[in-house]
Amino acid sequence: MAKDAYLVGLIGAGVGPSLSPALHQREADRQGLRYLYRLLDLDVLGRAPEAVGDLVRAARDLGYDGLNITHPCKQLVIDHLDALSPQAEALGAVNTVVFEGVRAVGHNTDVTGFAASFARGLPDAPLERVVQLGAGGAGTAVAHAVLTLGAGRVTVVDAVPARAAGLADSLVRHFGPGRAEAATLDRVAGLLGEADGRGGLVHATPTGMAAHPGLPLPAELLHPGLWVAEVVYRPLETELLRAAVARGCAVLGGGGMAVFQAADAFRLFTGRMPDSGRMLADFSELAGVESSGSPVG
Amino acid sequence: MAKDAYLVGLIGAGVGPSLSPALHQREADRQGLRYLYRLLDLDVLGRAPEAVGDLVRAARDLGYDGLNITHPCKQLVIDHLDALSPQAEALGAVNTVVFEGVRAVGHNTDVTGFAASFARGLPDAPLERVVQLGAGGAGTAVAHAVLTLGAGRVTVVDAVPARAAGLADSLVRHFGPGRAEAATLDRVAGLLGEADGRGGLVHATPTGMAAHPGLPLPAELLHPGLWVAEVVYRPLETELLRAAVARGCAVLGGGGMAVFQAADAFRLFTGRMPDSGRMLADFSELAGVESSGSPVG
Repeated sequence: MAKDAYLVGLIGAGVGPSLSPALHQREADRQGLRYLYRLLDLDVLGRAPEAVGDLVRAARDLGYDGLNITHPCKQLVIDHLDALSPQAEALGAVNTVVFEGVRAVGHNTDVTGFAASFARGLPDAPLERVVQLGAGGAGTAVAHAVLTLGAGRVTVVDAVPARAAGLADSLVRHFGPGRAEAATLDRVAGLLGEADGRGGLVHATPTGMAAHPGLPLPAELLHPGLWVAEVVYRPLETELLRAAVARGCAVLGGGGMAVFQAADAFRLFTGRMPDSGRMLADFSELAGVESSGSPVG
Repeated sequence: MAKDAYLVGLIGAGVGPSLSPALHQREADRQGLRYLYRLLDLDVLGRAPEAVGDLVRAARDLGYDGLNITHPCKQLVIDHLDALSPQAEALGAVNTVVFEGVRAVGHNTDVTGFAASFARGLPDAPLERVVQLGAGGAGTAVAHAVLTLGAGRVTVVDAVPARAAGLADSLVRHFGPGRAEAATLDRVAGLLGEADGRGGLVHATPTGMAAHPGLPLPAELLHPGLWVAEVVYRPLETELLRAAVARGCAVLGGGGMAVFQAADAFRLFTGRMPDSGRMLADFSELAGVESSGSPVG
């Protein structure tokens, strides 16, 4: 019997270090699928982000079953698709394209990925008040996820106030009055005080990544009554997570979101349920974390 | 350890029934490679043969390691390549493209494929006089193969006399005076009489394929002192092969060429030696021939 065969890829800039090929391919191997995941790096190809439409059409013609899409193409790709899932439509961002015959359909598994990771890693976390740092692409996805999980109110803080206001406005339109608001950086201390015991902090800026080391806020603002959810997963253990653990907070690392968005994309590409537990274990191994106390998931 | 991963495909018109994906993928599976072979059918894509250049460039950008090229693109593709192997250059036809970084290099494994099949299936066949029917793309490749194997003289016969003359001329330029000539159909009986006991017949027209049933020449022209080599492999057992066996000729089916050209392409794509014996067995199984008396190889 011929094995079912899948060809997928990732379009973005600087995607060389991505763990997606290994995550997808290992799960496919366990399921007995022929599965190839290619990195299509705009920097390597010498193509501008605006070339994403040409690349999507070429991928469709050349036998691809689907694509993941990442920075800086998650919004740009939308004009080149034939349909969007409700979640991708609501976010205005696509991280997964599935070819259905000649039609290219956009999805967003960042939202479902973060929601699944949160539900698994912080299952009993109170969600009455959530403070979120970062209103970019990742911030938009996790704010949608947190509100979908039932958060009472998300306060969005960004170094660019207009960006925070824009996200808060769109969240209110989508989830209803009072569910989101924007705030300036000087209000974070007070907001985290209000959230103590009934909510937590979502971190969705690049601070803490290898290229942007440091803490996104003073460690002394973290109280033991707050949970802290991190979006950064390179490194898995960020300075913020270390500080939060040291101050007694429950924490959620960014690895879980990375794994569950990949698992959801795998399901969209193949129609088969991945084993997310095995994918989490793969991720820990691939990311080079061997301690059992890893903050993944 | 991550497996070595290869992405290859076949560009041509009406390639849907091709056995190449199964042949390549089965061998790759035995070698423990991740290997995906996609059919890129011009008819399905609604693209003209002249689009082959765009498809080759797109395949390079989208992570392909190489391509097989078939009708009607084997000549058209040449203008879009960065280099040619000496064999492809001599033939003016490419059936295999290998991407070496951003460079696309053209090869022709039809010649080596036919030569390997002939050497294996008819190892002691005399080659003093060879009569070849058909001067198209397949005919050009097998004439080169037979002369490379040491044939004294190949006489090329084609329903279009100018095509036979053109091929004979180019063979003489490449292999030397007297090694090739063109002849008209009415001379075939006499030529086969001359070849009796010291040569044979190569059949390289479409006659005998499912869409072109029949015999390419009267069966009574075949003598027991001739070998008969067939290029058609769909069906594996053509009317010509049946007639030749009935008249006592040694025969070579077209399946061997199909397998050895695939084996050579596999080697070019991966740098690994395939097991052509196992690929021959796969081919027989895939082509639906279960009798041990199959003319494959």
